Amino acid sequence: MFPRQDPVVHSRVPQRWQGPLDEEALSRYERDGFLWFEGFFSRERVEPFFDELSAMASDSALMKSDQVILDPQNGALRSVFAMHELSERFDRLTRDPRILGMVRQLLGGDVYIHQSRVNHKFGFEGSGFQWHSDFETWHAEDGMPRMRAVSASLMLTDNNEFNGPLMLIPGSHQYFIPCAGETPPENWRHSLKAQQLGVPPQSALSKLAREGGIVAPKGPAGSLLLFECNVLHASNRNLSPWPRANLFFVYNSIDNQPVTPFCGQPPRPRFLATRGLAAREGWPA
Amino acid sequence: MFPRQDPVVHSRVPQRWQGPLDEEALSRYERDGFLWFEGFFSRERVEPFFDELSAMASDSALMKSDQVILDPQNGALRSVFAMHELSERFDRLTRDPRILGMVRQLLGGDVYIHQSRVNHKFGFEGSGFQWHSDFETWHAEDGMPRMRAVSASLMLTDNNEFNGPLMLIPGSHQYFIPCAGETPPENWRHSLKAQQLGVPPQSALSKLAREGGIVAPKGPAGSLLLFECNVLHASNRNLSPWPRANLFFVYNSIDNQPVTPFCGQPPRPRFLATRGLAAREGWPA
Repeated sequence: MFPRQDPVVHSRVPQRWQGPLDEEALSRYERDGFLWFEGFFSRERVEPFFDELSAMASDSALMKSDQVILDPQNGALRSVFAMHELSERFDRLTRDPRILGMVRQLLGGDVYIHQSRVNHKFGFEGSGFQWHSDFETWHAEDGMPRMRAVSASLMLTDNNEFNGPLMLIPGSHQYFIPCAGETPPENWRHSLKAQQLGVPPQSALSKLAREGGIVAPKGPAGSLLLFECNVLHASNRNLSPWPRANLFFVYNSIDNQPVTPFCGQPPRPRFLATRGLAAREGWPA
Repeated sequence: MFPRQDPVVHSRVPQRWQGPLDEEALSRYERDGFLWFEGFFSRERVEPFFDELSAMASDSALMKSDQVILDPQNGALRSVFAMHELSERFDRLTRDPRILGMVRQLLGGDVYIHQSRVNHKFGFEGSGFQWHSDFETWHAEDGMPRMRAVSASLMLTDNNEFNGPLMLIPGSHQYFIPCAGETPPENWRHSLKAQQLGVPPQSALSKLAREGGIVAPKGPAGSLLLFECNVLHASNRNLSPWPRANLFFVYNSIDNQPVTPFCGQPPRPRFLATRGLAAREGWPA
């Protein structure tokens, strides 16, 4: 376990002081590694996204493609990658000026979408995700050089105590925990269904959870979580009747584009890690 | 799904009015199917029980016996049955006058221990339990005639949001939900590790959870939950570093002793369902 080398907030004064996040929010993000905005959008605003996701689940051609991951337990839709390329509505959402403004401030300049996905846990059926740092994977398998990315997770359904909400260990982004074992070829074909490799050792997880605790932000559909690429997170099974669907847009600094993967394998497919993209622009004023 | 036929509180006036539970608590138990007593015992009082459990986990002869159930995922200790016969300390606890007084009032007379067990979820390792009604199993596989039993669950560790606390559906004890499928011979050898049969249909679970919600009582070691034998309950995996160990004593009315099992199979072993026992007495005054 090594101390973090990169800054958490990348913009410098005066950009750091130009908003939209104030110094209190920036300090909280530096300490915890995430920011939670309950009810960032209205429930009505996000409903069409959930409806579009449900429509995708009955698109049999799409369901057979590599960019759709099925639940290993029951074959139900678990994840869809590159949502913003499948759908005009999702693409437009990634360019929301309020979100882009915060992300540019956190990453210190122009950004693009490294990955987008939706994780869906059907009622009673959705499996969980083991503890992991996204950066660990993106560094090893995609060649992302530095910790200079942020995930925006938008709740498409209510997230409550029982439908498998995202759990985070505050402060864990301050350490880099290399995971044991080599990355086998095409590891993503297995790891996206049920992660076996790339899971940090229990001793490290214990230490960090005992220090920082565990939190699981909960709130209505439309709530937004911004979390740093190296925060340890996990989620449990959905044992409730209430579905849980969360959308993730990963913004990476335009100056932090992936190089040759550090695990020694070829890069993952484009729908998991885009390459050579231009900066993402907000809507026209 | 059939409406319940048996009373929930079995004592009649004047016994019902003689305590120790008052009318408000009894009404709550009738409505929800459980009562929660945060910090019923002190943390110090229950520590020796947890230590004794840890000692059992390193007793290799005991770990090989049928009455110890190992976790299907990792081989760790999951359950130990008939705890009150293995240990003087646990036996004495089942005769605690405060607990016995409440249980006798709820069941309307003398009681005995139908089953005792401890469920242990190690940090990061403990698997969960699917939704089920205990009575459904005890009726089918043990021949318990009526809904006239109550489980006393004592927390040997803190139960928090992240270490897989017990979840209940309030009000679900008001329905009997037969589970599809025949009971195969020696079903308990599999069902105690990972329940496949005896799980209520999702349609029934959905209806009841949407009506009554889901609750997960949380509190320090020493807290006590009394829950009716027919309440639907479940628990999730323990994804935290904090172990979770809960003790269960199932009290049955002396007038509700098992008959020939209704599933057509021979009775389960004695450590899962005692037969022909005398009433349990409190400590000498």
